[in-house]
Amino acid sequence: MFDEYSEARQEAAIMFRSTGIYVTGEEEERITVTDFELGDLRKEGAQILEWLNTSRVAVRLIALFPFQTLPEHFHRETKTDPGKEESLRVAAGTVYVYVPGEDNMTYGSIPRFQEEHYTVRHEIVLNPGDTYTLAPGIVHWFQAGGDGAVMYTFSSAARDGNNVFTNPATVKGCRINDLD
Amino acid sequence: MFDEYSEARQEAAIMFRSTGIYVTGEEEERITVTDFELGDLRKEGAQILEWLNTSRVAVRLIALFPFQTLPEHFHRETKTDPGKEESLRVAAGTVYVYVPGEDNMTYGSIPRFQEEHYTVRHEIVLNPGDTYTLAPGIVHWFQAGGDGAVMYTFSSAARDGNNVFTNPATVKGCRINDLD
Repeated sequence: MFDEYSEARQEAAIMFRSTGIYVTGEEEERITVTDFELGDLRKEGAQILEWLNTSRVAVRLIALFPFQTLPEHFHRETKTDPGKEESLRVAAGTVYVYVPGEDNMTYGSIPRFQEEHYTVRHEIVLNPGDTYTLAPGIVHWFQAGGDGAVMYTFSSAARDGNNVFTNPATVKGCRINDLD
Repeated sequence: MFDEYSEARQEAAIMFRSTGIYVTGEEEERITVTDFELGDLRKEGAQILEWLNTSRVAVRLIALFPFQTLPEHFHRETKTDPGKEESLRVAAGTVYVYVPGEDNMTYGSIPRFQEEHYTVRHEIVLNPGDTYTLAPGIVHWFQAGGDGAVMYTFSSAARDGNNVFTNPATVKGCRINDLD
């Protein structure tokens, strides 16, 4: 029987490993595949493997399929956290990061029929070895290039309940963990 | 002309890359090779590549040659920092981590003539994919197995001026950065 999520999980594990990143069998089983409740995984979605999430530091691997988009969001401040600071490092493929600023979108594109949910359009192109740090509170979204992409995210503690997505339909799908 | 440090830097870059970790040419040039001022790099030393070091999160790759030992130390608390929390994840080879607790040393060994500078002997064996988190203030040292090792360290901000080594001769050599 066809199971889109199992297939995506396996595909993500292959992407991590073919990039050269060691991923255990146990880890493969717990790769989070999410369409952010939007119903079209390959268009808007992500495959996420959490390596670490302490009270201070979180590390995740993210695999994005070709042109797959991780929807626009930011990490809100709470009483106990100034908001998640998030650094990306691309391991394979190309990632387009969009942040506030001049609209210079050249290589990526807004997911079709979702224009209203993608408000920031300043494009930053990241290739393997490139690192980019998003300060807390900065609205952002990611899109993979045509070969897909694998990236590390290194951040302060990840509390996904504090992610605020521009598209309100994503509310439930955004949680990888639920510690807050 | 023979330059032990350049050679170690190249060797570390090869170790990172053969593990499958993407390291740029610019990064190779800034791999820190340190003997911690102890004069015998292959016995006590480390090859360290800093990927990230913000006010909240630091990421480094460490290559250890076969049986190379990263000397015993801890990360002290300061007025502005509760002490570095450090998580290791092994990418290749085997790493022996030593922390306070019952002396169960089996696979590793104290560097010769340095017994007094290695006070904790509770051995934890980490293989590829294994992760271990050191709470702030915990005294620890690392040793690679016979094949050498490559590991990631994910931590709160790294301020090497706050590293306190058991062997007072290491004081200067421990600094990768000098932000404090």
